Amino acid sequence: MNIEMIRAAADRIKAHALRTPLLNSAFLDEVAGRRVWIKPECLQHTGSFKFRGAYSALSALDPDTRAKGVIAFSSGNHAQGVALAAKMHGISAVIVMPSDAPQLKIINTRAYGAEVVLYDRETESRDEIGARLSAERGLTLVKPFDEPQVIAGQGTTGLEIAEDANAMGIQNADVIVCCGGGGLTAGIALALETDAPTLRVRPAEPAGFDDVARSLISGQIERNPTKSGSICDAIITQAPGDITWPILKRLCGPALVISDDEALDAMAQAFLRLKLVAEPGGAAALAAALYRNNGIKGDDVIVTISGGNVDPAMFTRALERL
Amino acid sequence: MNIEMIRAAADRIKAHALRTPLLNSAFLDEVAGRRVWIKPECLQHTGSFKFRGAYSALSALDPDTRAKGVIAFSSGNHAQGVALAAKMHGISAVIVMPSDAPQLKIINTRAYGAEVVLYDRETESRDEIGARLSAERGLTLVKPFDEPQVIAGQGTTGLEIAEDANAMGIQNADVIVCCGGGGLTAGIALALETDAPTLRVRPAEPAGFDDVARSLISGQIERNPTKSGSICDAIITQAPGDITWPILKRLCGPALVISDDEALDAMAQAFLRLKLVAEPGGAAALAAALYRNNGIKGDDVIVTISGGNVDPAMFTRALERL
Repeated sequence: MNIEMIRAAADRIKAHALRTPLLNSAFLDEVAGRRVWIKPECLQHTGSFKFRGAYSALSALDPDTRAKGVIAFSSGNHAQGVALAAKMHGISAVIVMPSDAPQLKIINTRAYGAEVVLYDRETESRDEIGARLSAERGLTLVKPFDEPQVIAGQGTTGLEIAEDANAMGIQNADVIVCCGGGGLTAGIALALETDAPTLRVRPAEPAGFDDVARSLISGQIERNPTKSGSICDAIITQAPGDITWPILKRLCGPALVISDDEALDAMAQAFLRLKLVAEPGGAAALAAALYRNNGIKGDDVIVTISGGNVDPAMFTRALERL
Repeated sequence: MNIEMIRAAADRIKAHALRTPLLNSAFLDEVAGRRVWIKPECLQHTGSFKFRGAYSALSALDPDTRAKGVIAFSSGNHAQGVALAAKMHGISAVIVMPSDAPQLKIINTRAYGAEVVLYDRETESRDEIGARLSAERGLTLVKPFDEPQVIAGQGTTGLEIAEDANAMGIQNADVIVCCGGGGLTAGIALALETDAPTLRVRPAEPAGFDDVARSLISGQIERNPTKSGSICDAIITQAPGDITWPILKRLCGPALVISDDEALDAMAQAFLRLKLVAEPGGAAALAAALYRNNGIKGDDVIVTISGGNVDPAMFTRALERL
């Protein structure tokens, strides 16, 4: 896992992924007490950064292997990223989703052309279904974060942040990244290590699901005690991965932990000040910059809004807080 | 009013305005029956394209004149654009707003550093107040659309559309523009005339406020019978301007007229598929592309989302239609 893999991924996805800008708002600067720069990956294809990693992974496969198709387990943003990347490559994708996944995410994943296989969380094993389908059809598994070419794809976000920060003279700033399994966080950290070494990556996590925060403190992988209980569904992964963790440990500053209410308030601010739709987990880094700013130093802070796939009801809940 | 003025405006605003990308979504393509490309000016500073024209106009003033300050009449997006552009130039701005303007817009205009002078629509004359203040303080009036340097600034949107369309090989497409007084529409039309001459600009207007649609049919300036009655508040200007009209007449294809409900549906689609916050008037062009598509030809269509300054209550109303 190195910067050359990220640069190669950038070459592969260049014509297919959206090159997102850095946005800002004087109103947010005032709340945060410093300049806030937003990397709006909610604008990325499929509504989250996950498309970058998925396209990177699929485009890195040997063509004969790829032609047999891919498989992924996901109820959310990775599902849609893999489905669209597969469609763009003209190959089949099977996405194994729990039958109680949000209806909209199932519909969208199918609409991107993927075959959705539903399973019952209570009575069926996701891994067994996946193993059987892979064996029968020769499908390649695309993991959501603990996979080098996926991390390389997410790292292209970091190359863009570095390019824009350097052009604007932003130095000695924290880069706060919404963090689940750590694919985006590790990728950005690797890109900044070479391209903008004075910027420091800091993961943002929801309270109760602060496995990376605790891991960075203890120096070893820590796990969350529960698997559900936060509205930040996109980033409640149980623990950092075997590949992402050593990168996070080596390169990240202390994590920032936010509450669900702060995520909702950050969503409302993104609506009001940025005209962006953020999902709760995608607003975690902005929440940290706005409401946990006493733990941040420097004149500038850069944050990812990593996804915007949120139901209208949850979005309305955020707006009601204004 | 010519292309050289637009290029000069682009040079002046380059370091200050956001260079917005072109976005798209396969889901919207399906509804529209063709590829839909979105120019998201809701992401522009102050939440609408108006910042471009305001900055262009202020930066074009003679420095001594500019130093005395500027004045504008507006209850909406132009107010915020002029206020922020004035702040960036370190000069004072007076914005004359009706006392019944939305509270948020008054607060925002003040927050950008402008002096807001409120007047009573029933008992006071906006023009008299403006004339008195201008005379007393030597303020320069910045008109919302019928002013060459404002049109030049809005036209920079067209230069960017042309650059991206040419890079992607998009030809023979309609470019649908949310149209009030015609500043943005005329500016884009002038830019495309030289930089992407196979693209054709078409104004989008709300039903009942289709002055430009009727003007283009009759060949002379037509006026709207009423001044209020559509939720598309940003684009219910009474008639095209003396400067914008000849440009619209010479360069635009037939206008497209949409209903308020279609504007709300387009806002909901922008939320769901683009992760963008559009205001009703800012969603008019998207509504035309999605719901009036039988009047459009070609494999591609380009639309502006011209602004996103919408109250939570109105946005929730759009989401409830999903």
